[in-house]
Amino acid sequence: MVMTDEDKLTTAYHEAGHAVSGHFLLLVDPVHKVTIIPRGQALGVTFFLPQSDKYSYIKKKVEENIVMALSGRAAEEIMFGKEFVSAGARGDIEHVTRYARSMVCEWGMSDLLGPVQYGESDGPVFLAKDMSNRKTYSEKTHEDIDSEIKRIVTTGYERAIALLNEHKDKLIDLAEILLVKETLSSEEVNDILGGVDRPRFPILDSFRKEHPARLEAADTPEEISAGVSDALEA
Amino acid sequence: MVMTDEDKLTTAYHEAGHAVSGHFLLLVDPVHKVTIIPRGQALGVTFFLPQSDKYSYIKKKVEENIVMALSGRAAEEIMFGKEFVSAGARGDIEHVTRYARSMVCEWGMSDLLGPVQYGESDGPVFLAKDMSNRKTYSEKTHEDIDSEIKRIVTTGYERAIALLNEHKDKLIDLAEILLVKETLSSEEVNDILGGVDRPRFPILDSFRKEHPARLEAADTPEEISAGVSDALEA
Amino acid sequence: MVMTDEDKLTTAYHEAGHAVSGHFLLLVDPVHKVTIIPRGQALGVTFFLPQSDKYSYIKKKVEENIVMALSGRAAEEIMFGKEFVSAGARGDIEHVTRYARSMVCEWGMSDLLGPVQYGESDGPVFLAKDMSNRKTYSEKTHEDIDSEIKRIVTTGYERAIALLNEHKDKLIDLAEILLVKETLSSEEVNDILGGVDRPRFPILDSFRKEHPARLEAADTPEEISAGVSDALEA
Amino acid sequence: MVMTDEDKLTTAYHEAGHAVSGHFLLLVDPVHKVTIIPRGQALGVTFFLPQSDKYSYIKKKVEENIVMALSGRAAEEIMFGKEFVSAGARGDIEHVTRYARSMVCEWGMSDLLGPVQYGESDGPVFLAKDMSNRKTYSEKTHEDIDSEIKRIVTTGYERAIALLNEHKDKLIDLAEILLVKETLSSEEVNDILGGVDRPRFPILDSFRKEHPARLEAADTPEEISAGVSDALEA
Amino acid sequence: MVMTDEDKLTTAYHEAGHAVSGHFLLLVDPVHKVTIIPRGQALGVTFFLPQSDKYSYIKKKVEENIVMALSGRAAEEIMFGKEFVSAGARGDIEHVTRYARSMVCEWGMSDLLGPVQYGESDGPVFLAKDMSNRKTYSEKTHEDIDSEIKRIVTTGYERAIALLNEHKDKLIDLAEILLVKETLSSEEVNDILGGVDRPRFPILDSFRKEHPARLEAADTPEEISAGVSDALEA
Amino acid sequence: MVMTDEDKLTTAYHEAGHAVSGHFLLLVDPVHKVTIIPRGQALGVTFFLPQSDKYSYIKKKVEENIVMALSGRAAEEIMFGKEFVSAGARGDIEHVTRYARSMVCEWGMSDLLGPVQYGESDGPVFLAKDMSNRKTYSEKTHEDIDSEIKRIVTTGYERAIALLNEHKDKLIDLAEILLVKETLSSEEVNDILGGVDRPRFPILDSFRKEHPARLEAADTPEEISAGVSDALEA
Repeated sequence: MVMTDEDKLTTAYHEAGHAVSGHFLLLVDPVHKVTIIPRGQALGVTFFLPQSDKYSYIKKKVEENIVMALSGRAAEEIMFGKEFVSAGARGDIEHVTRYARSMVCEWGMSDLLGPVQYGESDGPVFLAKDMSNRKTYSEKTHEDIDSEIKRIVTTGYERAIALLNEHKDKLIDLAEILLVKETLSSEEVNDILGGVDRPRFPILDSFRKEHPARLEAADTPEEISAGVSDALEA
Repeated sequence: MVMTDEDKLTTAYHEAGHAVSGHFLLLVDPVHKVTIIPRGQALGVTFFLPQSDKYSYIKKKVEENIVMALSGRAAEEIMFGKEFVSAGARGDIEHVTRYARSMVCEWGMSDLLGPVQYGESDGPVFLAKDMSNRKTYSEKTHEDIDSEIKRIVTTGYERAIALLNEHKDKLIDLAEILLVKETLSSEEVNDILGGVDRPRFPILDSFRKEHPARLEAADTPEEISAGVSDALEA
Repeated sequence: MVMTDEDKLTTAYHEAGHAVSGHFLLLVDPVHKVTIIPRGQALGVTFFLPQSDKYSYIKKKVEENIVMALSGRAAEEIMFGKEFVSAGARGDIEHVTRYARSMVCEWGMSDLLGPVQYGESDGPVFLAKDMSNRKTYSEKTHEDIDSEIKRIVTTGYERAIALLNEHKDKLIDLAEILLVKETLSSEEVNDILGGVDRPRFPILDSFRKEHPARLEAADTPEEISAGVSDALEA
Repeated sequence: MVMTDEDKLTTAYHEAGHAVSGHFLLLVDPVHKVTIIPRGQALGVTFFLPQSDKYSYIKKKVEENIVMALSGRAAEEIMFGKEFVSAGARGDIEHVTRYARSMVCEWGMSDLLGPVQYGESDGPVFLAKDMSNRKTYSEKTHEDIDSEIKRIVTTGYERAIALLNEHKDKLIDLAEILLVKETLSSEEVNDILGGVDRPRFPILDSFRKEHPARLEAADTPEEISAGVSDALEA
Repeated sequence: MVMTDEDKLTTAYHEAGHAVSGHFLLLVDPVHKVTIIPRGQALGVTFFLPQSDKYSYIKKKVEENIVMALSGRAAEEIMFGKEFVSAGARGDIEHVTRYARSMVCEWGMSDLLGPVQYGESDGPVFLAKDMSNRKTYSEKTHEDIDSEIKRIVTTGYERAIALLNEHKDKLIDLAEILLVKETLSSEEVNDILGGVDRPRFPILDSFRKEHPARLEAADTPEEISAGVSDALEA
Repeated sequence: MVMTDEDKLTTAYHEAGHAVSGHFLLLVDPVHKVTIIPRGQALGVTFFLPQSDKYSYIKKKVEENIVMALSGRAAEEIMFGKEFVSAGARGDIEHVTRYARSMVCEWGMSDLLGPVQYGESDGPVFLAKDMSNRKTYSEKTHEDIDSEIKRIVTTGYERAIALLNEHKDKLIDLAEILLVKETLSSEEVNDILGGVDRPRFPILDSFRKEHPARLEAADTPEEISAGVSDALEA
C-alpha cells in the first residue's frame, strides 16, 4: 500500500483531530502516541492509555469518548471543507454508533427510553454488537431509539467541531509536525498542545458538589475510608 | 482486574442501593449478604435469601423486586448526579425488562393487555427469555406491550428514587461502612438499617381485608385448615 | 419442591375456581377430580372427563372452556385482590390464547374476520400451535386478529369473574375443604356444589328452537333416525 | 374414534350442505357420493366427479367451488344457529382461502390487483401453497390482497347461505336420510334433490352470447371445427 | 392428460392472442410456430424467433413483450367474457411481473424510481428472479415499486385488449384454423394475418429522428461505420 | 455471443458516454482504454487508471465517480431517446447505488443522516455489500436513507446528462470512431476529446482556499513538510 502525498496530508489532520480532542477532554484516557505510519487497513492511529478497567463506563466519559472519536472527521471538515471529507472515518462512525446504541439500549442512559433493555442477544454482549439481532421492540420504539442515537452522535460531532475550532492553531501545529516526524509520543504531544489539569477523582468531585455537607473533610476515596474506619473504631 | 478507587466508591453506593431497598420492601426476600469484592464480571453483589419456591410470583412481589433491582442505578443518580451514572446497571436493566415483559406477555398482569399470551416459544420458557422469538402480535399491539413494559419499569425506578431519598442517610452510612469492611452479613445490614416488621402471611392479610367476615378467627393458614377440619368432623 | 402455606392457600382457591366454573357451565366436560398435590411443575390440577371425541369443537363449548380456564385467575383476583394474583395462571393464559386464535384464524368463528384462514403451517396443526409460523396476512389484518383474540379472552374473563362472584360462598367452601383434604372426587365436588341439570343433546335443543315445526315428535337423535327409518320403509 | 349421536347429526347436515350446493351449482363437478362414515380425521366426506383436467380453472367455476366448499358450515349455521357451528369446517376454510389467494395472487382474477403476480415460490406451486413464502409486495398491497381474499370468500359464504335457504327442505330431507343410510350414491342424491340441467359447453354458451353473429350455426366445439374444416377445404 | 373440447377452444383463442399481438408489435421477435398440442404442463405454446442476443433489452421492446405475453388472457376476456377467463395465464402473469420488476428495480426504466437498484441478490440475477431476496428499501419505497410494476403491467394489458379488439376478425380466423390444424408455422400465420413491415434498425431510426442533421446520409449501421472509416482515412 | 449491428451502435455510445465524462471530471481517475469488444457478459468496457490507493474515498471524488458511471445510460438517452435505453446499464446502476449507500450508511457523508452507521455486517465490508444484511434502523429512518440514496444518484444522473449535452459533438465523434476501431487507447481518447488540466493536489487547493493565510508559501505537500522541517530545526 503506497500512500500518496495527499493521503498523508489528510491522515495527519485526521489523527491530529483525535489527539487534540483527547488532550482537552478531561475524562477521556490520556493520549499515548500518534502516528501516520499505516497499520493494517488504517492510514494512521492515535493511541490512548486506559486509566481504569473496562467496566467503568460512566455516562459523561462515554460522551467524551464519542466527541474524541468524531474529531478525526471534524478536523477534515474544518481544514479541507465539507466536500473533501474522506471515507477514512468509517471505523470511527461505526464505533460511536455502537457506543450510542449501548447507552440507549443497554445502559439506560437515555431519558426518553428509560432504564429498559431494548433488544436481546444469544451470548454475551460487548458494546451492543449483537443487540439488534433480536428486535424485541415495536417500530414506534425503534424510531425513538434511532432518534436518540442520532441526537447523541450529532451532539458529539458538534462538540468536536466547536472544540477543534477553539484550538485550531494547535491542531495545525500538531498536524504539520506529524507530517514531518510521522510519530509523536505523549510527551511530544503535551509539549505541542500544552499541559492540562486532569482531575484525579471526577466522580468524587461531583459527589462533593451534590452533597457538600457530607464530605467536606475528605479529599480522596482513601480519606473517606480512613474517616469511616476511625469512626467505626471510635 | 484492578478496581480503581472510584470504581470502589461507585460500587459501594450501587450495592448499598440494592440492600436498602431490599430491606425496606416487605415482600422482597430478605438481604443475606452485601459485598464489593468483585465476582466474575460483577464489581459487587447483593445476595437475597429466597423465602418461597420459584413458582410463587405474586404481582406485588414482582413489582417490589423491580424496585429493588433498579435501586443500584438509583443510588448512583442520587449520590453522583445523572452525568455520572455507570454502565454497571446493565444486568439489572436486563433483569427488570425481562420481569416486566413476563408480567405483560405471559402472566396477564397488565390491565391494558389483559389475560392474553403475547408471543410463543418452542421449548419451556423462564422469565420471557424466548417469548419474543415468535412474534404473534401486530405492530399496534407491540406498541401497547412496549408502553406497558416502559411504564412498569419507569414506575419501579421512580419508586426506587423516592425510597432511597427517604432513607438517604442510611444509604450513605451503609455505603461508607461497606467501603471499609467490603462485605456485610444480614445481621450487620440489620444493625445499620434498623429492624422492620416483615409480614408472615401477606396474602392472607389481604384476603382478610377483602373478606373480613369469613376468616376473623384464624390467624395463619394452619388455623384455617384446623378450623375447617373441626367443622368437617363435627 | 416445598410448598409454603401461602402457596397452598392460593392454589386451593385457584383450583376451586376452575372446578366451580366447570361445574356450572353446561357444555364444558364435567369435573372428574381436583387436587392441590403438586404434579410436575403445577401446584394443583383440576381434571375433566371428556364426553365426546376431540373433533367436536362447537363454538359455544369452546367459549365456555375459555371461561373455565380463566376461572383460576379470576378466583385469585376475587379472593386476594388484584395486587396478589400470581404467575400460576401462565399455562391457562397460554391455553385460552391458543383457543381464541384457532377460533379466529382457523375455524372461521369471528364475524369480523369471516370464514377465512389466517396463517399457514407446514405440517398438521392442533389448536393453532404453528399457525403463526407463516404470517400470510397484512399488519392491518393482524390488528383485527389481535383485537378479536383479546375481545374473546377478555369476555371470557369477565364471565368467569361474574360466575364466581355469583357462587362465591360455594367457591370458599370448596377451597377450604380442598385445603384440608387436598384431593376431591367428582362426587365430593357435587356434594359441595350441588347438582345441576346437564342437557344430553344441547345441539339438538338448539335445532328444535330454530326449527320448531320439524322435530316436535323426536326427543333424541336416535328417535329422529328411527322416525326417518319408519318413513323410508313406509 | 367414537362419534357421539350429536357428532353424527352435525356431520350429516354439514355433508348434506356440500351435496346440495354441489348439485345446484352448474359448473361444479357433479356429486359422486356422500358419506358420514368417518375417514381419517374427517367425520364425513362428499365426493365429486371431476369432469375435466386439472388445468381448466375458469373464474366462474372457481367461484362456485368456493360456494360449495363453504356450504357445510353454512348448513350448520342455518340448522343449529351461529353459536353451534363447529370446527369441522377447518379444512373447507383452508381450501377456499387457498383458492381465493390463487385467484388474486397468481391468476390475475381480481380487478383491484390486476394481472400481476404477488409473491414468489422456489419450486412448482399448486393452489398458492408456497406463494406467501416470499412476500414480494408492500404492506399497502398486502392490505389490498387481504381485502380481496376476504371479499371473495365472504361473497361465497353469503351465496352458500342464500342457496341453502332456498333449498332448505331438500337439505333437511337429504340430511335425515343420510343419518339413517350413512352413505348415498349420486343416483340416490339425484332422486332426493331432483334433476338439474347441467350445460355441456358453458364457455361456448358464453362465447355465443358475446358474439352472436359469429357462431349461430354451431352447437358444439366439434361443429365449429367441422364448419371451419369445410370452409378451409372449400 | 386429456383435454376436453372446451379446453381446446379456450387454448386456441389464448394462443391466437399471443400470435396476433406478436405479429403486429414491431419490436417483438417474429412468431415462429403456434400449437395447441399440449407440452409439459402447457395446453398450448406460441414460439418466437429471437432476433438478437439476450443482452439487448431495450425499454420499448420489453414493453411490447409484456403486451404480447398478456394477449393470451386478453383474448380469453374478449371472446368469452370476464367470468370465463382461465388460470392458464398463470405463467404469462409470472413472466410479465418479472419483466416489470426488472425494469423498475434493476434497469432504471421507471422515472418515478430513477436509475437506482432496489434489492440485492447473492449470485447472478436474471429477470429479477432473486432480487426481492434482500429487501434493501423501505416500505414507502416498496409502495412506489408496487405501484410502478402494476402501472406497467396494467398498461400492457390495456394495450393488449385494444390491439386484439382492433384485429378481432383475424384473431377469430387464426383461432378457428388452429382448432382444426392444431399447429401453424410462421408462414401459415403470415398468410392468415397478412404481412407487416418490420423495421430493420429501429434504434437507428429513432437516432435519426433525434439528430436529423447528423446521420442523414447513412441508412444502416454499416454505412455509418463506412462513412466514418472513409473520413478517418481522408 | 453474436452482437447485432444495433447492439454495437448502442454499445459504442454507452462506452463513449463513460469515457467523455471520465475525461472531463477532474477528480475521477483518467481513462485508460475504451473498447466495444465483448468481455464476459459485458458488450463493452471503459477502463480507468487508479491514481491513488483504495482507502482515499473523498466525498467529491465519489460523487464524480457516480456521474461517470451513469454516463453510459445518459448517452443512450441523449442519442436514442428515452424509449430506447437498454438494460445494459444494470451493472452501472448496481455500482452507483452501492456507492450512494456507502456514503449515507457508512461514511457519514449525508447531512440528513449524520455521522451515524446504519446497518451492520458480520465480516469486513466493501462498498456496503452486506450492510443491509442486518437492518438496525427503523422504517422511518429507512425512508430517509432511501430518499438520500435516490437524491445522490438522481443528482449524479442529471449532472451526467448536462455534461454530455455540453460535449455532445465530441461524444458523437468518439462513438463513431469507436464503431470503426473498436478499441481506443488513452492517447487516442485524448486526441479526440482534447486535453484538460487535471489538478495535482485538489485537496491541498481546497485547504489553501479555506485557510489562505497559512500555506501561502507552499505549493505541494512536500514543500509544507520541508517548511515545517526547517522551522523545527531552527
